[in-house]
Amino acid sequence: MKSNRKTFGIIIIGNEILSGKTIDTNSNLICGKFTSLGLLCKEVAVIPDEENIIIEKVNHFREKFDFVFTTGGIGPTHDDITANSVSKAFSVPLILNKVAKKRLENHYSDEPLTQARLKMAYLPISANLIDNPVSIAPGFFLENVYVLPGVPKILEGMLDQLTKKFSKNKKFEKKTITTILSEGIIGDYIANIQKKYSSLEIGSYPYFKKNSFGVSLVVTGDDKKSVNEAVNIIFEYLKKKKGKPRLF
Amino acid sequence: MKSNRKTFGIIIIGNEILSGKTIDTNSNLICGKFTSLGLLCKEVAVIPDEENIIIEKVNHFREKFDFVFTTGGIGPTHDDITANSVSKAFSVPLILNKVAKKRLENHYSDEPLTQARLKMAYLPISANLIDNPVSIAPGFFLENVYVLPGVPKILEGMLDQLTKKFSKNKKFEKKTITTILSEGIIGDYIANIQKKYSSLEIGSYPYFKKNSFGVSLVVTGDDKKSVNEAVNIIFEYLKKKKGKPRLF
Repeated sequence: MKSNRKTFGIIIIGNEILSGKTIDTNSNLICGKFTSLGLLCKEVAVIPDEENIIIEKVNHFREKFDFVFTTGGIGPTHDDITANSVSKAFSVPLILNKVAKKRLENHYSDEPLTQARLKMAYLPISANLIDNPVSIAPGFFLENVYVLPGVPKILEGMLDQLTKKFSKNKKFEKKTITTILSEGIIGDYIANIQKKYSSLEIGSYPYFKKNSFGVSLVVTGDDKKSVNEAVNIIFEYLKKKKGKPRLF
Repeated sequence: MKSNRKTFGIIIIGNEILSGKTIDTNSNLICGKFTSLGLLCKEVAVIPDEENIIIEKVNHFREKFDFVFTTGGIGPTHDDITANSVSKAFSVPLILNKVAKKRLENHYSDEPLTQARLKMAYLPISANLIDNPVSIAPGFFLENVYVLPGVPKILEGMLDQLTKKFSKNKKFEKKTITTILSEGIIGDYIANIQKKYSSLEIGSYPYFKKNSFGVSLVVTGDDKKSVNEAVNIIFEYLKKKKGKPRLF
């Protein structure tokens, strides 16, 4: 699909994902939120908690995409090395951020502000804070790189802050047609429609329900008129083939 | 963690993942299965259904890791371009594989073997088939690259075939300790243990249950003796701190 939409990449940092211990739901959350705001995700990378790998990936992605989101590795433990690694990627010093420290002091007023907890206030020197309504320790962004937490509940709270900032981006047009015919039957025809409408993306997704199966066709594009035109042609074809098409 | 374990990378191919429409569970399944066989996953990449991107990523990963697994894009529709892209990555022709064709003919004996369905039998010339007990159309491997389907149920069936082949790899040692103390309290101590046992990996994962929270510490390494030693030290420390440690 040709598009002039702004692009983004996601870097999921965490050995627990790569070992299969934890399933990553954060990239799905981020993809869904920013896609619906008109941005286009071009790549998700899941990488280990290793400094040189984080530095390399952050630098690669911030060159390649308009925006980069990272999750994971900004908590209080020894394996939380994301803030330090992002500092190194940008070649700026990691310093004790006074605003972040103040917030943690207020939050832990009844408990010791241990070295481990204070670690969460060490951020790259020119970082902008991202508010954390759930557990206070802030995320941050530096140029086009947004550094977010790995715990899904905390991430969700921060994303609500962030999406406001992005909501001015252009939306795109998307329609879905379902049919009871299989991909093997309609595939050749849909391939021809895709060729004819090369500016659109026509995704084909088989579904399997308890007592039935079929295909969802998702037509996406920048131009509303072309999307509607292609959708109508496909719909009429499926009707003729007794494919019981439904439009969403 | 220093390790002499064989490494692997996973390439998840599919626009439906990047748009947030579908959550990727395949990488978790593959990571879990091959980690338990002693292999080490170094990166998961989710990329779009775009030929040049698939070619570039396959070539990058097959150089970098011992094994590469791809999922998605080997079905019958126009957006299923993985077999063709892998052919191009290896610079070998895509041909009609006679064995794969025969299997499809037998499977679709009561239905038309459409061009779209026959497409699933076009494979790189030197491909080795991977049996598909669920929906017949085979996966394949070429040197160290294993090309698998995106539909999770079908993938699962094929992985059972594959894991037999890999089960000779060396296992590693893994123990888990849980505690009711938070990361902020135990973080400094655990950081010191990690420094002392640099050949091990000590992962720290907060958990939140309905009426309690705490931390799971996962200690992993090639050497059983070091793992046990580190685990005992941590366990005794947590007991002294009234952290109610439990060992798994």
